[in-house]
Amino acid sequence: MEESSRPLDALNEARNKRVIIDLKNGHQYVGKLKAFDIHINTVLDEAEEREEGEVKRKLGTVFIRGDTIITISPE
Amino acid sequence: MEESSRPLDALNEARNKRVIIDLKNGHQYVGKLKAFDIHINTVLDEAEEREEGEVKRKLGTVFIRGDTIITISPE
Amino acid sequence: MEESSRPLDALNEARNKRVIIDLKNGHQYVGKLKAFDIHINTVLDEAEEREEGEVKRKLGTVFIRGDTIITISPE
Amino acid sequence: MEESSRPLDALNEARNKRVIIDLKNGHQYVGKLKAFDIHINTVLDEAEEREEGEVKRKLGTVFIRGDTIITISPE
Amino acid sequence: MEESSRPLDALNEARNKRVIIDLKNGHQYVGKLKAFDIHINTVLDEAEEREEGEVKRKLGTVFIRGDTIITISPE
Amino acid sequence: MEESSRPLDALNEARNKRVIIDLKNGHQYVGKLKAFDIHINTVLDEAEEREEGEVKRKLGTVFIRGDTIITISPE
Amino acid sequence: MEESSRPLDALNEARNKRVIIDLKNGHQYVGKLKAFDIHINTVLDEAEEREEGEVKRKLGTVFIRGDTIITISPE
Repeated sequence: MEESSRPLDALNEARNKRVIIDLKNGHQYVGKLKAFDIHINTVLDEAEEREEGEVKRKLGTVFIRGDTIITISPE
Repeated sequence: MEESSRPLDALNEARNKRVIIDLKNGHQYVGKLKAFDIHINTVLDEAEEREEGEVKRKLGTVFIRGDTIITISPE
Repeated sequence: MEESSRPLDALNEARNKRVIIDLKNGHQYVGKLKAFDIHINTVLDEAEEREEGEVKRKLGTVFIRGDTIITISPE
Repeated sequence: MEESSRPLDALNEARNKRVIIDLKNGHQYVGKLKAFDIHINTVLDEAEEREEGEVKRKLGTVFIRGDTIITISPE
Repeated sequence: MEESSRPLDALNEARNKRVIIDLKNGHQYVGKLKAFDIHINTVLDEAEEREEGEVKRKLGTVFIRGDTIITISPE
Repeated sequence: MEESSRPLDALNEARNKRVIIDLKNGHQYVGKLKAFDIHINTVLDEAEEREEGEVKRKLGTVFIRGDTIITISPE
Repeated sequence: MEESSRPLDALNEARNKRVIIDLKNGHQYVGKLKAFDIHINTVLDEAEEREEGEVKRKLGTVFIRGDTIITISPE
């Protein structure tokens, strides 16, 4: 995510890489970033939901509504 | 939901398949994805509301307002 | 609400039929669906407010602001 | 509010009649509906604020911001 | 605020008069209505903040962001 | 902030003067108003964060996102 | 961040410098400001999450959704 000037460029560089997504309700999703849009609606593949570092649920693919997201960072 | 580049493409691939929808209030709806729009307003058929894995209510068809949704994933 | 491809088509098929509307504050309204718009602002006729299955208040006609709604489903 | 197809038509039929407005914070306003707009910003005349059925405050005219409203129904 | 058909007309009639503004966080501001816009961003002059009827803070002029407002009514 | 008819005119008159900004989370920022926009995104210079009247943190310059603001008033 | 008249100009002057971002949920991120947009979506490099002054998590690069942000200030 270096040398980019717009936030979505940074997300674009993370495409197909594993990312950690922290949600407003305290939940955390980890998976391969497949898609996102300007609302930060996001799709992860090979995704899992984690709670305090432990896997709570394996989801395969998951669509996450953008307005529930706080941060997206590389795993 | 493979090989799609926009989040709504991923939802489109899930059409007519069973999905799990997690809401901001902690409720969970499971059913066949019949329709959705850019606000993520969603219609499920053969739907049921679940609480901690158990069926709480059978709804048949249900319209879910998009801004109440956190995640949509295949069952 | 079968065979429709957009969520509002599904609501349109429910017009003049009795529906259950669940709100974000936990309240539930039941009545005949008379009108709705793209914000999901909704008007019910012969409406009643229910709390845990029991009728709390009879309202006749009621206008419900769309952003307070979680789900709309046939009674 | 019969035979109208859009939610704001229903509000229009209630103009100059007494309505009950329930707010998201649990407060209730009762008065004559003088004006509203597409945001459901609303003006009541001869208005009073009620708490559990009892008059808490007499307001004369009151402007209510639309995004605080849950329901509007005839008294 | 009589005989107006749009909510902002009613606010316009209250211009330069003293109004009570109730906020979503329970605070109350009282002062002379100097300005407002379509978001209901509002400016009061000779303003004071009140808590349960008692003056808590004298503010002179105050700008209030519209999305924090529930009601505006004449003092 | 006298004789202005739009809320942002009033903010403009406060430019380069010290203002108190109250936030939705109860925090308070005090500083010289350097910039604002239509979302009420705001920049203060020589800013400090206060809690119940006492300085909690000195910040120099601070950007405040508009949707977190309740009121802006002269110090 | 001196002499700028729009809030985003002030953010632009902070580009490539270390900033502190305070979020609505009480979390704090510190890092080098790489990118932002009009929604205040923000990307930090060499970022860390802090809780009451102590480093809780090192994140490298992090994308922060703008609507979760309260303030951005130089470290």
